[in-house]
Amino acid sequence: MSGGVYTLAVDAMGGDSAPGIVVEGLALAAERHPSAKFLLIGDEAQIAPLLARHKRAAAACTVRHTPDAIPNEMKPTAALRMRGASMRMAIDAVAQGEAQGVVSAGNTGALLALAKIVVKTLPGINRPAMAAIGPSARGDVVMLDLGANVACDTRNLVEFAVMGDMFARTVLGLTAPSIGLLNVGSEELKGDDRVRDAAEVLRASFLAAQFHGFVEGHDIAAGTVDVVVTDGFTGNVALKTGEGALKLMSDLLRQVFQGSLGGKLAYLLARPGLDRLREWLDPRSYNGAVMLGLNGVVVKSHGGTDGQGFAHAVDVAMDMVVHRFNDRIRDGLARIVGLNSIGAGSGLAPAIGQ
Amino acid sequence: MSGGVYTLAVDAMGGDSAPGIVVEGLALAAERHPSAKFLLIGDEAQIAPLLARHKRAAAACTVRHTPDAIPNEMKPTAALRMRGASMRMAIDAVAQGEAQGVVSAGNTGALLALAKIVVKTLPGINRPAMAAIGPSARGDVVMLDLGANVACDTRNLVEFAVMGDMFARTVLGLTAPSIGLLNVGSEELKGDDRVRDAAEVLRASFLAAQFHGFVEGHDIAAGTVDVVVTDGFTGNVALKTGEGALKLMSDLLRQVFQGSLGGKLAYLLARPGLDRLREWLDPRSYNGAVMLGLNGVVVKSHGGTDGQGFAHAVDVAMDMVVHRFNDRIRDGLARIVGLNSIGAGSGLAPAIGQ
Repeated sequence: MSGGVYTLAVDAMGGDSAPGIVVEGLALAAERHPSAKFLLIGDEAQIAPLLARHKRAAAACTVRHTPDAIPNEMKPTAALRMRGASMRMAIDAVAQGEAQGVVSAGNTGALLALAKIVVKTLPGINRPAMAAIGPSARGDVVMLDLGANVACDTRNLVEFAVMGDMFARTVLGLTAPSIGLLNVGSEELKGDDRVRDAAEVLRASFLAAQFHGFVEGHDIAAGTVDVVVTDGFTGNVALKTGEGALKLMSDLLRQVFQGSLGGKLAYLLARPGLDRLREWLDPRSYNGAVMLGLNGVVVKSHGGTDGQGFAHAVDVAMDMVVHRFNDRIRDGLARIVGLNSIGAGSGLAPAIGQ
Repeated sequence: MSGGVYTLAVDAMGGDSAPGIVVEGLALAAERHPSAKFLLIGDEAQIAPLLARHKRAAAACTVRHTPDAIPNEMKPTAALRMRGASMRMAIDAVAQGEAQGVVSAGNTGALLALAKIVVKTLPGINRPAMAAIGPSARGDVVMLDLGANVACDTRNLVEFAVMGDMFARTVLGLTAPSIGLLNVGSEELKGDDRVRDAAEVLRASFLAAQFHGFVEGHDIAAGTVDVVVTDGFTGNVALKTGEGALKLMSDLLRQVFQGSLGGKLAYLLARPGLDRLREWLDPRSYNGAVMLGLNGVVVKSHGGTDGQGFAHAVDVAMDMVVHRFNDRIRDGLARIVGLNSIGAGSGLAPAIGQ
């Protein structure tokens, strides 16, 4: 990683339309990140003809051949045994220092498991979390955990707040992101012990000034805070519920605009605004969930995305590599240690101490 | 409850704009339910002038005066001590058989606590749950629990499925509603023990033919199933996240239509379709969350709704009273007992047995 040249390892075979959309995505990404190099891992027979059509991608790529790929429906335990799989070799490249980050649109469970075992968790972090950025009425919002941990305790939630803060600083460029803990009400006594204890720890921590308190489901799209912290079960459901609601409304609007002559004319008249709206809410422009808390940058692209979406996942990985996210989170870890001792003093040690 | 005359007890003082919207709502409801009587409980000095303006409501109402009301921010434990509060007296009327159901737009926590203690849980039900109906691409969807229980075990989830099934039959008129268990993935091995065990019990139960398996957040708006079962924490967050996403999109659309001359013309042209869309997604037409599993019909209206929304909450209560929801769920309880013995035989007794 010298002279500002960064290498990302890319799983060519992950995702519903791989390797086609992967190479398309890299062609777009190569344009946006002229100093980036890509170590593209997968079936050379499928990749070579695609690179022949995308010269710009070809110039930035080194291909490493492997015939094996982890299927989408494979259990993580089985995936761990496929040492020659494209995803595994991409992750190995990060662990061995050949690449600073990895991007895959493949099997999420396998990526999580491999990343934890091969790239390893940062010292001081109990559980890595999956974070992503989404749209809100008041700008982009970071949410985590999105499903890496179905059950979380107080300590996990506090760690997620620390990592989410650093992620919002690094990728959104905010100087003091506001942080909210997702709950069923905003009053202090709402929720279970887990979220109430996490709120108490955060109020006494170095993040106190940024900690907004509890937020509710509707606060996500309202943009009440910059970082929404929750357990992986709730976060996964909330993310998909919000996406589902937006999709329902888009589908219904399409029917309005296509259902009558008046609707069709209306569409033409309102098109500039509607196009901006669509672009703004476009899931592709928010594609790329990041595994936080690992010794390397690991980005999961949606499996059903297209070249533009994959390119955005590469953007996220590049942002994190270029802005040295992991060095910064290592610096932040000293503060997490402080946080744990606060916890120990406040009777919360079992929840947030080691 | 003879001759098809039903009485609902109504908390006149609950909600942000009470008693105004309550009386407006009753005026609309009295028109729709000519046989309904309302026992309206609250501050007579405030209620009388409102009834003077709404003759139709006045004809259906008996007013019971009390000067006390439970404030919105009051803790349930404190609310339980206010024996003269309008909400409490309304609930007492159900417990004493004066009314078949109660509608309140007041403090949710207080309503839940009072309902459990005064109206009491049906024998065989471990935990009452809050359910509501929402829009989806494929018709109305029932979701529960929406926040009555922040933590739920396997047995609770199974009970929610049984009650949600009966609710969908009674209020939506479905003959064999499909039931999904909310999870972070649709594969059998996803999620925690709680949801996996509940799925196993349901697959072996009398609901097996209706049980779809796991559903994810995006399945709610897609209408994949008629009944979505989840714990109160996740359900509350999912409901509010979906509402928040729809509100974001509505606000953005308003900007498109108001932001330019083209937008304004487009709005006029597409208005019939947009009005239908707005009406269809109108939160007021889905207002009224129901407490299931109690010895009486208890409906919570949104605190910020208007007269139309309050009237809809009354509709829901009337539906449940007229269709004898509680008699039907009592009949269903014999089957829950059977369910528990299935649980006992399958090693799941600690989770779903008594």
